[in-house]
Amino acid sequence: MNYSKIPLSQTVTTLCKTHNIKHIVISPGSRNAPLTIGFTHDDFFNCYSIVDERCAAFFALGIAQQLQEPVAVVCTSGSALLNYYPAIAEAYYSHIPLVVLSADRPKHLIDVGDGQTIKQQNIYGEHILYSANLKLDLRKTENQKPEEELPIIKSIENKLERFLGLQKDIQTYNESEIHDALTISKLKFGPVHINIPFDEPLYETVNELVINPKPFKIETRQEKVDDFEIKSLVDVWQSAKRKMILVGVLQPNSIEEKWLQEIADDDSIIVFTETTSNLHHPDFFPGIDKMIAPLNEEDFKALQPDILLTFGGLVVSKKIKVFLRTYKPEHHWHVGLFKANDTFFCLDKHLKLRPNTFLAAFLPQVTHHTKSNYKLTWLTVRQKRRKMHELYLDDLPFSDFTVFNSVLKSLPKQSVLQVGNSSAIRYTQLFHVSKSVSVFCNRGTSGIDGSTSTAIGASIATEQRTTFITGDLSFFYDSNALWNNYIPKTFRIIVINNEGGGIFRILPGHKDTNNFDTFFETKHHLSAKQLCEMYGFKYKVAKDQNETITQLNEFYKVSKQPVLLEIFTPSKINDKILLEYFKFIK
Amino acid sequence: MNYSKIPLSQTVTTLCKTHNIKHIVISPGSRNAPLTIGFTHDDFFNCYSIVDERCAAFFALGIAQQLQEPVAVVCTSGSALLNYYPAIAEAYYSHIPLVVLSADRPKHLIDVGDGQTIKQQNIYGEHILYSANLKLDLRKTENQKPEEELPIIKSIENKLERFLGLQKDIQTYNESEIHDALTISKLKFGPVHINIPFDEPLYETVNELVINPKPFKIETRQEKVDDFEIKSLVDVWQSAKRKMILVGVLQPNSIEEKWLQEIADDDSIIVFTETTSNLHHPDFFPGIDKMIAPLNEEDFKALQPDILLTFGGLVVSKKIKVFLRTYKPEHHWHVGLFKANDTFFCLDKHLKLRPNTFLAAFLPQVTHHTKSNYKLTWLTVRQKRRKMHELYLDDLPFSDFTVFNSVLKSLPKQSVLQVGNSSAIRYTQLFHVSKSVSVFCNRGTSGIDGSTSTAIGASIATEQRTTFITGDLSFFYDSNALWNNYIPKTFRIIVINNEGGGIFRILPGHKDTNNFDTFFETKHHLSAKQLCEMYGFKYKVAKDQNETITQLNEFYKVSKQPVLLEIFTPSKINDKILLEYFKFIK
Repeated sequence: MNYSKIPLSQTVTTLCKTHNIKHIVISPGSRNAPLTIGFTHDDFFNCYSIVDERCAAFFALGIAQQLQEPVAVVCTSGSALLNYYPAIAEAYYSHIPLVVLSADRPKHLIDVGDGQTIKQQNIYGEHILYSANLKLDLRKTENQKPEEELPIIKSIENKLERFLGLQKDIQTYNESEIHDALTISKLKFGPVHINIPFDEPLYETVNELVINPKPFKIETRQEKVDDFEIKSLVDVWQSAKRKMILVGVLQPNSIEEKWLQEIADDDSIIVFTETTSNLHHPDFFPGIDKMIAPLNEEDFKALQPDILLTFGGLVVSKKIKVFLRTYKPEHHWHVGLFKANDTFFCLDKHLKLRPNTFLAAFLPQVTHHTKSNYKLTWLTVRQKRRKMHELYLDDLPFSDFTVFNSVLKSLPKQSVLQVGNSSAIRYTQLFHVSKSVSVFCNRGTSGIDGSTSTAIGASIATEQRTTFITGDLSFFYDSNALWNNYIPKTFRIIVINNEGGGIFRILPGHKDTNNFDTFFETKHHLSAKQLCEMYGFKYKVAKDQNETITQLNEFYKVSKQPVLLEIFTPSKINDKILLEYFKFIK
Repeated sequence: MNYSKIPLSQTVTTLCKTHNIKHIVISPGSRNAPLTIGFTHDDFFNCYSIVDERCAAFFALGIAQQLQEPVAVVCTSGSALLNYYPAIAEAYYSHIPLVVLSADRPKHLIDVGDGQTIKQQNIYGEHILYSANLKLDLRKTENQKPEEELPIIKSIENKLERFLGLQKDIQTYNESEIHDALTISKLKFGPVHINIPFDEPLYETVNELVINPKPFKIETRQEKVDDFEIKSLVDVWQSAKRKMILVGVLQPNSIEEKWLQEIADDDSIIVFTETTSNLHHPDFFPGIDKMIAPLNEEDFKALQPDILLTFGGLVVSKKIKVFLRTYKPEHHWHVGLFKANDTFFCLDKHLKLRPNTFLAAFLPQVTHHTKSNYKLTWLTVRQKRRKMHELYLDDLPFSDFTVFNSVLKSLPKQSVLQVGNSSAIRYTQLFHVSKSVSVFCNRGTSGIDGSTSTAIGASIATEQRTTFITGDLSFFYDSNALWNNYIPKTFRIIVINNEGGGIFRILPGHKDTNNFDTFFETKHHLSAKQLCEMYGFKYKVAKDQNETITQLNEFYKVSKQPVLLEIFTPSKINDKILLEYFKFIK
């Protein structure tokens, strides 16, 4: 086996192994060569090479999203690690464990005019859980001094000789920092940054490790149920007449079926879910916007809960936020291991427990309401909406709306659906998605910048096949995602191309002016065809409803390449159809 | 004329006009709609729409690089402004004035679970000259309260009513912050960030301005020559036997011909330039690597200067850094308005003057050496190198080396050459580039992430035609640069495609293993052909020397589209030819 000769590189790779970090996404570079050598020569690690760091980090995010385990990205010094930042912010707000391993120059070569050098320490500011700024281990690299840096090293060494043993401390410091960073990423579920200075020469290898890191205890996440607290909540809960549970982004299978059933059996509870909640029961209320968009003041008052219980991450629906901010519940309790967002400005309780742990402790103590009309009233409304929804689809002209309807019906059972941001995820919320399909979307920052890369990363980390649905702007934004040698043949992309940012047409702007077309809708006439040719995707296209149906019938069949279906919809009617929809279903 | 109804938006656009910021690069979004409305409805501004913010910021950087004036980028909230960061860091280290105008949510909606929201204040950390965090102007937006945020606004307003006049202060504060940021960008030449919170509704317009910003004095950059200091330097200078002037990145026409001639006439001065120095005289020494690569210890001692004078920004040549760090001059003086890099660890003087101002004050006081052999000795060496260089080219097989030779000879007179990072700029340094060609390269962070976007931005801001030379990895990295409606028909791209990161083959790695090919060279078989088809470039290709010559003969002729020439070179011999070159020219 080959190791980098640099002890600090050995320490990093060894501790990643100890912490069971298996997936390493590497972008090419020279300064990070010691890490690349270390990771790629050890079969323990699955290494991936992705050139564009923005894509690399989102790709890693996709893997971590599926595995719910830390995944590492490795890059060279300079602007490389700035290109990670969009994915780092997404990981921060979506609670996805991501480990940045950035190579750096030794401190004395920073800000003196050397190339590919920026101030890398603490670069991710407030969007990182921990920044470990490792120190150069000079003592151990005594025999590695390159001719070109000799004079500098020398003067530093002279100073160092006065502090015998200091380098020993540095080794200990570095080990401890790496360990802390990796532990935090795993336990607190988020991004951490380890900045690693390397001196030249960078490419030398040895056959045996020269380091022997102290053993660290690998901690596991602890949950502690406070019986007294639970008890006190039960009283409040039972005295409330109307309870609402709102579920944001949640991993599939987060809550046991029996708890879901028990909640569903209580007529005083309404459960609002989104496709990204990955939570299903016939009595729950998916499609929040469809449900509440047509409501008037009186309806809102009738829907206003006494208690709001929230699970999971960020909520897609803007309408539910407006509703609950205006018609505040008396209590808002959030249940989840990580940060509780005071989204409705009335949060009064954060239970740092997994939803399932909470329900297992809470529900057995609750006496359920069976005589409330709360849920039944709204189930009737839901029934009406569903009927109107179907009616609306009858004879509806070919548009984004009909396309999402067809596409979401076509998804294979037991598969993963990844959805792009902006229009794509908002449309998806309006339709039924099969219980057997797991749904994911980058809702942490809701950016259009890395959805394709995330979907591709996720596709290699799940045993189920993956379909990715995206709008055109988001797709072209992240076109470098396809520059990737790891895409499974079963991977499918559906680009809904309405030749611009269709979502802006829905907003109250000034449509159909040159100004609007250029600066808001950003109209274009691009197609995904050439990118497919370039990156080895089979390209399919549909331009009307019949073609869409025909293409979808063939779309998921076994293929020798991944397949992309581009559906062109008429941009000028999409917004009208959507706005009309919310009036129609009333 | 249409203005945004939001006073803060009016203030921002009005002050940009006062500060004569004319070029505004806008990425689509909703939160930034007030700014987009303001800028695009005023003919004073040249507005550009670029979807991918990473490209948008580099595009703006290219404009600012040519104009040497602040250029603004405008984006929505969330991860959008993180995608600006690579260009911000480049602007910071290259001293290019760039103004980020990022729209933000009101403070009370940050970190509560709203979409497209991150902690935007001070996001660019240490890589920005100033961060202005503007405040929400509530009083003035009284009539603009959206139903959905009413309850929140209400409670804040109640508090505010207790502080009558506070909002007046906020208006004054915002004006002053904007003014400071714009002044700093212009005077200190670098990036600044203005973060602008907007409340909904975002799309309303009015026909007249409701604001009337206080007049600010627009400052201009001052240079002050300290006669006493100059005098003291003259003595040291004259007592030195060997003086070296090393010029980094410099704008064309920075120094008057008469000063260049006077320097050239002094036999005790050697002037080392790079293509990016844009400084020419027959007696200067361009091609530093070619000059010093073959030197031995004795030669280096003979070349070691007593005084080193540096002008301009970052230096490309690694070899000169190694040489001067090892054979330090007694004195290193840097002349330039901005930060002086202590690149050789012996900087003892920073004169905050333009090189031309310094020379105009300094040279008239100097008595020149005419009897030194210093320059003459090295001119002989230079002569020999040039002869060997030409000899080496005879019968050399088709390769990166021969391609750069042909390409650089082909450049039109009076044109701009933009060069990509890594191999492209390093090869360019080895060849003669005509005096009439201005050369630019993003050497601030030396990233491969935005060179194409920069070149395109620059091409629209110069009256000369622009050619961009790039390697394949850098070109594909920034492929979204071509998603741009502003590319002049005269714009030319030459992609030298050796199917991977050829530069890594030159480094002392382990070539021709699977591991090396994947994680270092990152081999691929991509071509620029499909991107050309997609984005409306005429595509030309060459695969040998004859085809290259033939294509170059036609390349610069008038065309209906911009043209891209892709030259495929044999990856396996390029590194050998380059390494052999440095031995051969000895």
